[in-house]
Formats: sequence, C-alpha cells, structure tokens
Amino acid sequence: MKHRKILLSENEIPEKWYNIIADMPNKPLPPLNPATLEPIGPEALAPLFPMELIKQEVTPEKWVTIPDEVRNIYSLWRPTPLYRAYGLEKALDTPAKIYYKYEGVSPSGSHKPNTAVAQAYYNKQEGVKTITTETGAGQWGSALAFACKHFKINCEVYMVKLSYEHKPYRKTMMNTWGAKVFPSPSDATQIGKKILAENPDTTGSLGIAISEAIERAASSDDIKYALGSVLNHVKLHQTVVGQEALKQMEKAGDLPDIVIAPFGGGSNFAGLAFPFLRLNLEEGRKIRCIASEPASCPKLTRGEFRYDFGDTGGMTPLLPMYTLGHNFVPAPIHAGGLRYHGAGVIVSQLLKDQLIEAIAHDNLEVFEAGVTFAQAEGIIPAPEATHGIATVIREAEKCKQEGVSKTILFNLCGHGNFDMKAYEDYFAGNIQKHELSEEEIKASLAKLNTPTI
Amino acid sequence: MKHRKILLSENEIPEKWYNIIADMPNKPLPPLNPATLEPIGPEALAPLFPMELIKQEVTPEKWVTIPDEVRNIYSLWRPTPLYRAYGLEKALDTPAKIYYKYEGVSPSGSHKPNTAVAQAYYNKQEGVKTITTETGAGQWGSALAFACKHFKINCEVYMVKLSYEHKPYRKTMMNTWGAKVFPSPSDATQIGKKILAENPDTTGSLGIAISEAIERAASSDDIKYALGSVLNHVKLHQTVVGQEALKQMEKAGDLPDIVIAPFGGGSNFAGLAFPFLRLNLEEGRKIRCIASEPASCPKLTRGEFRYDFGDTGGMTPLLPMYTLGHNFVPAPIHAGGLRYHGAGVIVSQLLKDQLIEAIAHDNLEVFEAGVTFAQAEGIIPAPEATHGIATVIREAEKCKQEGVSKTILFNLCGHGNFDMKAYEDYFAGNIQKHELSEEEIKASLAKLNTPTI
Repeated sequence: MKHRKILLSENEIPEKWYNIIADMPNKPLPPLNPATLEPIGPEALAPLFPMELIKQEVTPEKWVTIPDEVRNIYSLWRPTPLYRAYGLEKALDTPAKIYYKYEGVSPSGSHKPNTAVAQAYYNKQEGVKTITTETGAGQWGSALAFACKHFKINCEVYMVKLSYEHKPYRKTMMNTWGAKVFPSPSDATQIGKKILAENPDTTGSLGIAISEAIERAASSDDIKYALGSVLNHVKLHQTVVGQEALKQMEKAGDLPDIVIAPFGGGSNFAGLAFPFLRLNLEEGRKIRCIASEPASCPKLTRGEFRYDFGDTGGMTPLLPMYTLGHNFVPAPIHAGGLRYHGAGVIVSQLLKDQLIEAIAHDNLEVFEAGVTFAQAEGIIPAPEATHGIATVIREAEKCKQEGVSKTILFNLCGHGNFDMKAYEDYFAGNIQKHELSEEEIKASLAKLNTPTI
Repeated sequence: MKHRKILLSENEIPEKWYNIIADMPNKPLPPLNPATLEPIGPEALAPLFPMELIKQEVTPEKWVTIPDEVRNIYSLWRPTPLYRAYGLEKALDTPAKIYYKYEGVSPSGSHKPNTAVAQAYYNKQEGVKTITTETGAGQWGSALAFACKHFKINCEVYMVKLSYEHKPYRKTMMNTWGAKVFPSPSDATQIGKKILAENPDTTGSLGIAISEAIERAASSDDIKYALGSVLNHVKLHQTVVGQEALKQMEKAGDLPDIVIAPFGGGSNFAGLAFPFLRLNLEEGRKIRCIASEPASCPKLTRGEFRYDFGDTGGMTPLLPMYTLGHNFVPAPIHAGGLRYHGAGVIVSQLLKDQLIEAIAHDNLEVFEAGVTFAQAEGIIPAPEATHGIATVIREAEKCKQEGVSKTILFNLCGHGNFDMKAYEDYFAGNIQKHELSEEEIKASLAKLNTPTI
C-alpha cells in the first residue's frame, strides 16, 4: 500500500519563524506618512499593536524564535499532515506528482490560527486585556477567538452585518470560544453609531468593521487590534507551514518544482512559499512559486505597483504594493478571504523582482477544481483553497501535454465545512463567470492620488 | 514540551476487524421471524445486502481480514490521532489522565466512513450499481456518499424532509460527492407517493425514509441498501477505532481504566470499546466500558431487554435488544444520531451480562460539557460526542473527589462544524432539561406484543 500522508512528530514543529526580508535582494520600500509622504517608523503602530509584534514587523533578523507557549498551543493541531494526492493524480491522469499541505485540521479549520495564537500570546505578554478585530466570512475572527480563549484575553469581533446575518454559524463558533461578536456597524463604537444613524439599514462593509475595531483599540491601552493577513509579522508566523512542508517533502524524498498557494493579502501564500523561496535565494534553486488569485480581484496579475492605502477608509500608512486601488470593490465571490484590493509589501516586492509568479482564475474554474478535488481526495476545500487547486490542475495538465513529471506542492489552506452554501450555489448554476474589464481596473486606479513608484 | 498527540503510520492501520461475538460468554439470541416467531437465517437479508456483509453479520470468526482496497481508502484519514487532553485535565483540575480518539478528521467529519467504505466495497465486488440509504441529520448519508464516490457506485439518500429543509449543508456535502438526495417522503418510491398523496405537507420521519430506501433496494438486484449502525457487521467495521487506540495507548505507556463512547445504535461505542473488552474477556482485565446515552432516549439505562423490531414500521426481523419500544418517539434533541429506540443485539447482550455499563445524560449537561471541551481543547464536538464528554467529566470529577488518578479514554466521534445551530440554541437558552417520566416509558413498552426474554 502506498502511503498518502507524511507526518511529523510534535518536536518537529518549527522552533523559529523564517523572515524572508533578510534574504531579499531588494528590500521592501518604507511605508509613508500619507500627510507628509515621509517614511514612517514602527512607533506609529504602537497604539494598535503590542511592541513585540511591531518589532517583528520591521526586524531584519532572518530567524525569529517561536515561544514555547505558542508551540504548545500549535501542538493542538500541528504539525499538519502533508498528503500525496494519489487520488487527484489519477483523476487528472497526469504524470505530475502532486502533494498538498493540509491546514484544515486546525480547530477553526484554516491556517489562520498560526498567526492568531502568536498574536494573542504577545498581547498577553504585554498585559493587553482585549483584542479587537474585523471579520468578513469569519475565518479570521474564529481563529482569533480560539487563540484568545487559550490566553484568557477578551476577544471582540466586528463582523460585517451581511455576513453576521447570512453566516450565523461562524458567529456561533466564535461565541463557543467565548468571543463577543458585533454585527458591524454596531452601536459599540462612535463610528458605528454615526453610520447607523445615517443609514440604519446598511449591511456594513469590511472597511467599516476595520474602522470600528481600530476605534476600540485606540480608545484604551488595555485594548489592541489584530490583523489576519497583509502585514509582515503575519506572514512571518505563517512560515511554520512551509517549514514543515519542506521537512515532509524531504522525508518523501522529493522536492517541489512548483509551489502553489491561494492569494488574498499574502500570508497564506507566504506561509507555504517563503521557506521554499529561501532555497532559491540561498542556493540558487529554481522552484517556481505561484500565487493564485481570483480573476475578479486580480491585483497581482492586473494591478499596479505603487503606494496605496491598506484599507478602504484611507487610515493606514501608504504601503508599496500591487493594488487595484483602495476603493476597488471586487465582485461578491464566495472566496471572501481573497477579496482584498492589494498585496502585502513583501510579496509585492518579490513579484516586482520576478522572484515569484501569479495567476488569476475565474470563479467557475475554481469551483470545478474544488469539486474535482473533493471527489478525488475526499476533503471538500474552502473556496479560497480552490484557487490554488485550479492552478495545480493547469500545471498538471501541462505536464500531461508535455509528457513530463513535475512535482507540485500546494497549500490546502482550509476545509469548506462552513462554505457549503457556495457549493450549493455552484450546483444550482448560480455562479457566473465574471469578466473584469480593463476599463474597470483603469477607472479604479485613476482615482488614486498616492505616489507612484 | 509535552506531546499531545499519539500518531500511527499508515501501515499501522489494522489489517483485521475484531468480531467480539467469538469471545462473548453468552452469544446473542437469534433474530426471529415476526410471523412464525421461529429463528431466521441470514438468507432473509439477501434482497437488501450483498452476501459478504451477510456473512460478516453472522460469522463466528474472531478476526475478519480488511481488504487492501478498504485500507487504501481508510488511509485518506486513518490512522486517526489519539490526543492526551491536557487542556481538559487542567480545566477540570483533575488527577485523572484523559485521552481521546478523534474520528472527526475523516472527510465527512465522523466515524461513519469506517463502515461506509467497507460496505461500498463489498457492494461493488458483487456488482451492485446503486446503494440506497436513509439519513436524518446527515452524518451517515454523507459518509456513504463519500464512500460510494470512491467505488463509482450510485448513492441515493432519502433524507427526512424536515432535515432536508433545515440542514441544507449536509445535503450539499452529499451532492459534492455525487450522491442524489431526496427529501423524504419523495415521489421516487410507491410508499413515498402514497404518503405524499395522503399528507402533502408531511415533514417526514426516519421510519418513512427507511421504508423508501428499502423499497428501492428490493426493487432490483442491482440496488442494495446500507445501514449506518445497529447491525453486527457495522459494529465489526468500527473496531478499527479501538484497535488503533489500543496501540496508541500502549505507545503512550498507558492503558485505560475507563473507556467511554456515545451510544446511538451501538457502532460508535462498539468501535472504541470492543478491542478493550477483548482484554477483559481474554485476560481478565477490568477495564470499565461505559456507553453514554441521552436521558431523552435511555434504552440502555431504562429500557427493557426483550424482542422488538429494529424499525418503527415493524418490517425487520425481531431482534433481542434493550428497547424503549419501536414506536417510542424521543424528544427532538440535536444529537440526532442518538435518537434510536433500541440497542444493537451484541451490545444488548453485553449489558445484560453486566460486561459493560451505561449512563444517561440530560441535554443541558451535555452542551455544558461540549463548551467546556471546546474551550479547553479547541475542537468543537458534535452533539453526539458531547454525551461521551459528559461521562468523562463525571468520572474525572469523581477522581478528584477521591484523590485517585484513573486513566480515561473516550471517543470524540465527530466535530460539530455542521451542528452550530445546536450550540446557537444552547447559548440562546433554548435548550431545556427534558425529564422523561416512568409513565412515558411504561406506556411505550406496554404497546409491544413481541416476545419477552
């Protein structure tokens, strides 16, 4: 019998996070103060984040030690299994060897707790009593709720009201771990009250939810804010994924030719790909690392590399990123985790330097890929994860056409147990191909008056 | 760092299923023909099940070889992890050592695929083209849908209409694996059409769904029927759970004093407990094996040991079982998998012979236990699984009171990702304590005119 799973023991949970900045030939450009357009330092983040996370945001050190307390919570589900996808290979009749790292075994069902646990830990260390955050579909909010429960920190989640009403089960999951969940806009904040007064029937937006979470965090030294992607320290924490995968591939006697992961803000992709990119940067290997994004939100493949705000409201520093413009509103696809207008600064610089690749997939292609995977491998993937699978299928088919056997590794970042409505819509024929015109993208970028690069 | 998980490699997936009948001091009494009250032979089952499963239903052999093809599909998720519940031990401040076997890592999220895969395999071997079954909450139906997809067999699931409408996500899960799901009563069967004609607005029942699935199976040699619990061969297949757990406990250098599992029809309990009971029967060990049932459906703790029908409609042979009467309608608790009026014959005989124990828990106690577990260990348990956890907590508290450290093992048979509505109801205060009176039970049993034992 051929083995499907390559497992590690708990003492093989990585002891350090990998900081790719140390190895980058061109370091990311500095963030700018939007008023002065001068570079800003890390101290600007102090009201929102604990000092240790701010240090990690800017550290040039190549390796950052993972505290034992964090590794201890990681061990509830880490190391995660690496699978050889024999079923998918057979279904695709491809000579390619396909592997996937499965992050859906975490309690909240995705890779998000890798950073949520670390962030909760550092907040606890610095005496923070409450962490606030926003959530759309709920993956991030539930990961943070889980993490806060372990460190006995209060967790306040501002959940976009439309999601709060349409996806009550993610909310209940957060409640089970003790978090308070507010439909946003809420009357727990000034900005929420103001918006509700002006428009009592609003269904909310991620931008509003961020504003509420930040207002709460800024209101007291005991309260901090947490973000689930985009930032450097979030990417750093996710590198446990790729480090484990590298060890597991070595155990399998294999090394990937191609590494693939879905792309929203970048932490999912960074988590799997950076430890493999390290081999390219250190040893001159040629592992292709491909970020898979939705065609309806194609910042990497069709966006512009320039300074832009990280949030819709324009409250963050200006960041050097691939962006569709901070006011860009992507179509309401089910892969809510990929509906972000920009890419984190590290990944943006890597793409600019052609050290990584990107590809965009249409909404119909990714659901077809998701169902193919579920039928071949059993696990029903989250809509975000199906984007990576679509890229895998394209590369595996290329192998078949060319008669070559490449080794492909991808990040199955989460299961779809809370996303069955998306599959239901797909089976009912309610998922449409969505063509984003060149004009729409140009129009969104034309609104920017931020510095070009 | 203390290790939480004890893992096995894929070549440690058991090679045989364990048949406890071979070791039972008193063998189960035979099933009876309801018309003649004469013992009936296995041939009576031939229209519904493939011959190999019928053989397994009555085999006296102690070990039954697991086909390689079944072990190959098992390896998609097996061996499942055994956890040391350090978090729960700490939360309970108990000197007890608590372990749990986690079956929620299967693609459908419970232990059910252990038998679904085996049943689909034997049907395929005998040329069966379609398998029919009924499902209530959907755990069993989705496990069978997953299994049938792997063996390219059509799967027809008759899903109680109320569940079909209220739990659309389980239905979509089955669709994703290619199953046809009918709201029952449906117009795919004569009995369904008849019931719909008489009562177009009926919300259905498990009894009706069984009747529809059986009618379809009896209509053609190409179509067979599958059952997810109660029967001997189902219990047999589940023993992979306990065999792995035994090996894992040995690796941990421990042996349980107490083994606990939820009880519906018996296969969950049998799966974990029988391989440990084997040690009692073979070597005279004194491992306590406790079945945890809901107080609203207490066949083991308050039922009568006598002959009764296995189904509500009275179409099955008469079986010697602990029963509340085949017309007993339990309260609509969320642990749908435990709402069955009787216990499988093997477990019934074992209880009669005082070789196992049983305990009933109120609905409020089990949700409290579920939330305690989720907060301490991360994983949110299925409502069925919370019954086992409630027993664990009682035993762990007893250890604390008595100042002794016992080793407790339980079966975390599934996650609650598709049951968040249940937790929502609990948090909203909509779960009530349910007292079943002695009169209600007596009244149900008084309706029986089947043979006593």
